[in-house]
Amino acid sequence: MSIQKRKYNPEDDLGFGSQPVIKNQPLIRQDGSVNVKRQGLPFFKAYETFHRLITMSWTKFWLLILAGYFVANVLFALLYLAIGVQYLNGAEGTTTYEHFWDAFFFSAQTIATVGYGRISPKGMATNTVAALESMLGLVGFALATGLLYGRFSRPSAKILYSNNLLVAPYLENGRGLMFRLANLRRNTLIDLKIEVIFSYNEDVNGKIMRRFYQLDLERTQVSILTLNWTVVHPLDDKSPLKDMTPEDLERTEATFAVLLKAFDDTFAQNVHSRTSYQHHQLVWGARFVPAFDRDQDGRIVLDLSKISEYKAADLPVIQGA
Amino acid sequence: MSIQKRKYNPEDDLGFGSQPVIKNQPLIRQDGSVNVKRQGLPFFKAYETFHRLITMSWTKFWLLILAGYFVANVLFALLYLAIGVQYLNGAEGTTTYEHFWDAFFFSAQTIATVGYGRISPKGMATNTVAALESMLGLVGFALATGLLYGRFSRPSAKILYSNNLLVAPYLENGRGLMFRLANLRRNTLIDLKIEVIFSYNEDVNGKIMRRFYQLDLERTQVSILTLNWTVVHPLDDKSPLKDMTPEDLERTEATFAVLLKAFDDTFAQNVHSRTSYQHHQLVWGARFVPAFDRDQDGRIVLDLSKISEYKAADLPVIQGA
Amino acid sequence: MSIQKRKYNPEDDLGFGSQPVIKNQPLIRQDGSVNVKRQGLPFFKAYETFHRLITMSWTKFWLLILAGYFVANVLFALLYLAIGVQYLNGAEGTTTYEHFWDAFFFSAQTIATVGYGRISPKGMATNTVAALESMLGLVGFALATGLLYGRFSRPSAKILYSNNLLVAPYLENGRGLMFRLANLRRNTLIDLKIEVIFSYNEDVNGKIMRRFYQLDLERTQVSILTLNWTVVHPLDDKSPLKDMTPEDLERTEATFAVLLKAFDDTFAQNVHSRTSYQHHQLVWGARFVPAFDRDQDGRIVLDLSKISEYKAADLPVIQGA
Amino acid sequence: MSIQKRKYNPEDDLGFGSQPVIKNQPLIRQDGSVNVKRQGLPFFKAYETFHRLITMSWTKFWLLILAGYFVANVLFALLYLAIGVQYLNGAEGTTTYEHFWDAFFFSAQTIATVGYGRISPKGMATNTVAALESMLGLVGFALATGLLYGRFSRPSAKILYSNNLLVAPYLENGRGLMFRLANLRRNTLIDLKIEVIFSYNEDVNGKIMRRFYQLDLERTQVSILTLNWTVVHPLDDKSPLKDMTPEDLERTEATFAVLLKAFDDTFAQNVHSRTSYQHHQLVWGARFVPAFDRDQDGRIVLDLSKISEYKAADLPVIQGA
Repeated sequence: MSIQKRKYNPEDDLGFGSQPVIKNQPLIRQDGSVNVKRQGLPFFKAYETFHRLITMSWTKFWLLILAGYFVANVLFALLYLAIGVQYLNGAEGTTTYEHFWDAFFFSAQTIATVGYGRISPKGMATNTVAALESMLGLVGFALATGLLYGRFSRPSAKILYSNNLLVAPYLENGRGLMFRLANLRRNTLIDLKIEVIFSYNEDVNGKIMRRFYQLDLERTQVSILTLNWTVVHPLDDKSPLKDMTPEDLERTEATFAVLLKAFDDTFAQNVHSRTSYQHHQLVWGARFVPAFDRDQDGRIVLDLSKISEYKAADLPVIQGA
Repeated sequence: MSIQKRKYNPEDDLGFGSQPVIKNQPLIRQDGSVNVKRQGLPFFKAYETFHRLITMSWTKFWLLILAGYFVANVLFALLYLAIGVQYLNGAEGTTTYEHFWDAFFFSAQTIATVGYGRISPKGMATNTVAALESMLGLVGFALATGLLYGRFSRPSAKILYSNNLLVAPYLENGRGLMFRLANLRRNTLIDLKIEVIFSYNEDVNGKIMRRFYQLDLERTQVSILTLNWTVVHPLDDKSPLKDMTPEDLERTEATFAVLLKAFDDTFAQNVHSRTSYQHHQLVWGARFVPAFDRDQDGRIVLDLSKISEYKAADLPVIQGA
Repeated sequence: MSIQKRKYNPEDDLGFGSQPVIKNQPLIRQDGSVNVKRQGLPFFKAYETFHRLITMSWTKFWLLILAGYFVANVLFALLYLAIGVQYLNGAEGTTTYEHFWDAFFFSAQTIATVGYGRISPKGMATNTVAALESMLGLVGFALATGLLYGRFSRPSAKILYSNNLLVAPYLENGRGLMFRLANLRRNTLIDLKIEVIFSYNEDVNGKIMRRFYQLDLERTQVSILTLNWTVVHPLDDKSPLKDMTPEDLERTEATFAVLLKAFDDTFAQNVHSRTSYQHHQLVWGARFVPAFDRDQDGRIVLDLSKISEYKAADLPVIQGA
Repeated sequence: MSIQKRKYNPEDDLGFGSQPVIKNQPLIRQDGSVNVKRQGLPFFKAYETFHRLITMSWTKFWLLILAGYFVANVLFALLYLAIGVQYLNGAEGTTTYEHFWDAFFFSAQTIATVGYGRISPKGMATNTVAALESMLGLVGFALATGLLYGRFSRPSAKILYSNNLLVAPYLENGRGLMFRLANLRRNTLIDLKIEVIFSYNEDVNGKIMRRFYQLDLERTQVSILTLNWTVVHPLDDKSPLKDMTPEDLERTEATFAVLLKAFDDTFAQNVHSRTSYQHHQLVWGARFVPAFDRDQDGRIVLDLSKISEYKAADLPVIQGA
């Protein structure tokens, strides 16, 4: 009925401590991010800005670049107007509206270091601002180059995990907790290592504590990930989950955190991937459908859209139950 | 006659599972790439694009850059024409053909931020497009910088493997399975580690399964790769290959996968190299010819063109056979 | 009364040797830097320059860039003047003062590759200098790009350590030496490992020697640092600090060096952090106040401004004392 | 008299094999490079070019950049002249000499994307060449940026080793083989590991073979390298060098290869350093003079110019001799 006791090993705990999970707020979300709000941080830091610019979405990134370019040109245009439009040699506008756009486009030609020269700076002040603006343009461009390279070269495994954890028939008369994963990317992942941490709330003399167990796996590493990998935790006598029921798991807010390490052979970087399964993602009595096939040449074809596919399967009757 | 049984160790399997190899389609090709087709991937991903631009050949890469430059200029030229050629100040063309090329070369001068100024933009629309184009030029250039650096700094060991696996005399009255390798590059490789996985199809009650064995090696690591390295698997009593015949190997589609890890001392990166040998690449009764010599100063000279050279050699009669 | 003897292990020593610490000059400062002056270094090295440009503050860095830009333009302006202002086509200045600024702004337009063209070079000498200056501009820009990227991508964990080491109640009737730490940054730190080295001056037959002990910790690693981590050294019978008094620690210039390793998941880099505690930072009889709370959704909220907060706590009477 | 035999361990060999060293040509030179000539390499490879551009001296590098810029401009100038100088709008030269320099400086203004516009392209052919040249300028600049960053960010420990290996008094009545090292750079090196491999020629039934022994060290790692590190091999009963004489070492062409690994804390990279000592660099009966002192604040001052300093010292009489 209840979860089997096993000697508590502090190293199994991921570092979350004994705080219970409440209201379905697991400590690791399904996308692998950490579910903790942080306060008391200083307002601005160069590193944080860089981090945000590197990790934001491409759409946001390009909009920001475009907006920055526009705002910089507006500001410099106003500066040129403040100094006097007569110092923009060749500007032919006659109204304030035309003056502004003359200054704006002169600014754009300066910051991008195009410098057609139809409009050119005259006088000390305008020349100084233009010299600074072109330098700013070069530096801004250097920043953009660094950011773009940083965004591209960021190591990030993209692992496709099956949507569900299955309780499936395993070996002869056994049961196993299984999920499946595959590499969504074209790069070759080698030396993969995986850990699965099972955690749940335990009532210790009326106080709710969070408990962590590292689950034993059929195999914890593979040398190359070419097909899919079905990760199996045998539900045998040593498993803390042996006598669990779906109701137990729900009541104790059970979570399975998955931590995967690998080496990206293309960019020579260690990459990490995390995910988590909540109790409601378990399917009892099912097995995965093979995700690969052969083509006419005998070559194996892996279909990534089938990673989550399973079908019902009878579980063996447990001996000791 | 048949392949000797040894206790199956799941960690020997590289992660390919028990699918048999058929029709000479090994799971790792001789160039080290993985022989699996992948389906069900999303059509476009920023990362995949980057990956392709980084790993494509230099010829393709430069053609793509050139084509991109040309296409961008054609598109912007059409835009300038659509707005009206009269907004290109200084364009002197009179026919449509001349108008196009005026616009095209104005675009080229803008996107490369040269801006001679003989032709310059006039009016709101043309100025806006030119401002955007010069910004696009800068960003495109930033992208190219990142890509070029990414291409150059990509870690990639270039290991030269001998064309054949030899069954050669080894120590006193022994035989060994041998191949040879050397570094094709000028960089220094240190801390090399090697694994050789022997796999073949086995008939298990009528079902063909793929079996994997990690072969014992005379030595599995060297500190620096300066000359060539002859990797030796002693064909002794512990070898799963002891009683094999060439026919056995062909029938079972035997493959030898080679996995090499090293540290590139020049760029401080871990690098990996893979290759595979098929059964038909084995030569029975041969030994490698030394690939290095001395010059007149006593200094060792390594000739990389001789890495695959071997000559016939008598194999000792096996005692227990 | 005195510090308990334990078998000396040379590997506990961080590499500082047996030199005693005098006048409160610990070998590792609280900010993690090493407190050793170095002499006899060669005056100038490319690498050292790069290192300084990468590690200096942002304010200094930008001022240096700006100053470099200004100085380069002054030098080139003087060069153009030396050749003759009449070779600057389009320069309209008439006084020496105006000549200088014409040359200065021409230089700025050349080094930033803007090239409006209102002023342009004429004659062999001026053209040659301008060609070299524009090349220098490109190369300087390339350097700035590399430096900016180098500055941003530099791995650097920013760990917030509690201000004090506490001697706190620990488990049942025990005492523990504790400090607390948290990640100040938005990046995810995984696979953290920590070492605490206790060192003090020992009188060995009248000669003062520095001794080092690696302290046993309740746990030496966590998989992910999401909340704060309270590092605990149990003050049990095995601790070299078991019988210490505040006076002993002060007299022997006791120091606690903390070495933390982690893996930065965002940039796939190993990062290191160091700090040290001096004897006067110990608080006897206190315990940390929890630094996190729950919001209304059950989600944990970590307040980084509370990492150092503690309150008084009674220590258990030590049995054997 | 002769070198003591110890069980041969193939892992001690660095991968050089049993080729004897002759005529003072050690396999690792004192600067850490590998003393092997390589033949049979393909003539040109992109990677090799990159490798050379990254590792050549700064003087060579800048001369190459400058020469490349000059040559490119000469080639393009000849192209513009071939098309016809009349297509260079604004070129005012009248002699062939003046034509060439008009074309040359126009080319320089184009490749650096300055584009003053006093001279500008006219006609299809000249415009096309100018468009390609400006693109080439951008790409060349991108290459230079990558190369500069690659040069700067290259990990490379700069370790200062003492000039000599000393046979010095060690502990009570013992002798030790010692050398000293320190970090020449401002970066912090942590987690240092060292190996010393002793090799010599051995006469095996008339055939000269090279033998390798990894020497036992007092300590093989330090956590931080802040001062100097004196590496000690105790010349005790287990040492293969116990009964050696200077004559033995010379006759057998004895070499001591030193391999150091460390982690550069500033750039988060593993760095490696190698050196070697030849038999004639051994000093019998000497000890190192301390290389550090205290300033008036009690702070330790390390003088790198004293790393190699030693003074004569009496060696204890060996018991068993």
